[in-house]
Amino acid sequence: MNIWVTEDQTENLRISFRVKTILDHAESKFQKCDIYDTFDFGRLMMLDNVVMLTERDEFFYHEMIAHVPLTVHPRPKRVLVIGGGDGGTIREVARHSEVEDITIVEIDKMVVDMSRKHLPFVACGFDDPRVTLHIADGIRFIQEQKNAWDIILIDSTDPVAFAEGLFHSDFYTSVREALTENGILVAQTEFPLLSRNLIRDIFSSLNQVFPVSRMYLAPVPTYPTGLWSFGFASKGPDPLRDFNVQRAAALAGKLKYYTGDTHRHALTIPPFIRELLP
Amino acid sequence: MNIWVTEDQTENLRISFRVKTILDHAESKFQKCDIYDTFDFGRLMMLDNVVMLTERDEFFYHEMIAHVPLTVHPRPKRVLVIGGGDGGTIREVARHSEVEDITIVEIDKMVVDMSRKHLPFVACGFDDPRVTLHIADGIRFIQEQKNAWDIILIDSTDPVAFAEGLFHSDFYTSVREALTENGILVAQTEFPLLSRNLIRDIFSSLNQVFPVSRMYLAPVPTYPTGLWSFGFASKGPDPLRDFNVQRAAALAGKLKYYTGDTHRHALTIPPFIRELLP
Repeated sequence: MNIWVTEDQTENLRISFRVKTILDHAESKFQKCDIYDTFDFGRLMMLDNVVMLTERDEFFYHEMIAHVPLTVHPRPKRVLVIGGGDGGTIREVARHSEVEDITIVEIDKMVVDMSRKHLPFVACGFDDPRVTLHIADGIRFIQEQKNAWDIILIDSTDPVAFAEGLFHSDFYTSVREALTENGILVAQTEFPLLSRNLIRDIFSSLNQVFPVSRMYLAPVPTYPTGLWSFGFASKGPDPLRDFNVQRAAALAGKLKYYTGDTHRHALTIPPFIRELLP
Repeated sequence: MNIWVTEDQTENLRISFRVKTILDHAESKFQKCDIYDTFDFGRLMMLDNVVMLTERDEFFYHEMIAHVPLTVHPRPKRVLVIGGGDGGTIREVARHSEVEDITIVEIDKMVVDMSRKHLPFVACGFDDPRVTLHIADGIRFIQEQKNAWDIILIDSTDPVAFAEGLFHSDFYTSVREALTENGILVAQTEFPLLSRNLIRDIFSSLNQVFPVSRMYLAPVPTYPTGLWSFGFASKGPDPLRDFNVQRAAALAGKLKYYTGDTHRHALTIPPFIRELLP
């Protein structure tokens, strides 16, 4: 048996994983979902043939999307996640005892179901009693929210099809309205080495809509180029100035990538990326 | 035309690049060399089907192997590079005006010739008048050197075939003897996410042979997992304590990745790697 699964990461770049077992396939009206067990990366979930997560390296992304805003907000009580139906992001949010309400809005119930069936290491996020799941369109959901959330995390697929609107400035404006006074948005914002125009547009929009906007970086080995960016935008808190060292230290021993040092490191933007930012 | 070139990064992981033009092929008694022009990454050099460098992302590796030790050594005058026949590492070393002698020992003249012919953006390193090239076995060369070099950089291929000895503690002992009083060794040391036993062995050896040993990290998108490690070992200088901020600042505007901030943050080792180190 020599089975390989390949993602076209760009038109010109591919990654391929050798597969132990093809575990499951499902289709919804939004997308198709495949679950594999791979040799180097353990369980792998793909949506429309794009890697969403692997068991071996999901910790980089999930720790970094959650713990940066959660160690910066002065009093994070209500956290909303748009997307993230696998459960990995809410698993990390739930590590913070200050958080009282974790609401997740996933457009596609299939993603949640497939994760619960095959990816217990992330789906365990749904077990926390503070979690409420809505199967709904995040863009519509957010339009009805005003001054409601301390932190909003956009854990989306790439900016194509139904997820495209999650990268537009109209959406960022809705998010700003949905945030409380010191509110923070964090969104996954793709790969700076090759997605240069997209990065320029996203950060220009965030900069127009929010008084504070910053990029931070993390390695994600199975995503294109292995070097991923996140957009941090807020109504006031700054991830460098307002970083709560004690809260970061309280996570020690539980995480594989995030630490207080990682936090500071992630906000260091090298020259080849800095030139894309406002 | 839909031509792709693939590297087997591990037995279970592949990267593939779409090719504009197949530029050249050569074989020596050591290895074979292929040069491609690719869509996303520009010119690409492979040795025995393993990516050595691409035009688009070589700066991460070459800046980081050179500028970390060169901003830490108190008075770097004599620099020896083992391997690195493409010229990218010496191009970066040559940015430091304090350096008087840059000697490069490459085992395979074919690599130098192919780089000079097809990769001017790295081969320009050979143009500096301080550079001397020896076509020789680095392991034998170093055995004859005593108290001769301020900095030795091991810019090698992976630890297989003729390069395997470059990862052993006998070789590190020879390097220590070849270094001057405050001498520094930096070696490329593979990818911590998957090469865990190798990393453990290398850093255990460096720790036994040198009074100071540290790891630092950099993204290299076209290398396996995209997250690369370097071993720093010295007779005294410590890359955190003895870092010359002015010398780093003098490089500003010339580089794409390395800055003083990058330097400090590259030495931040996350928990999943720290557990491998002595």
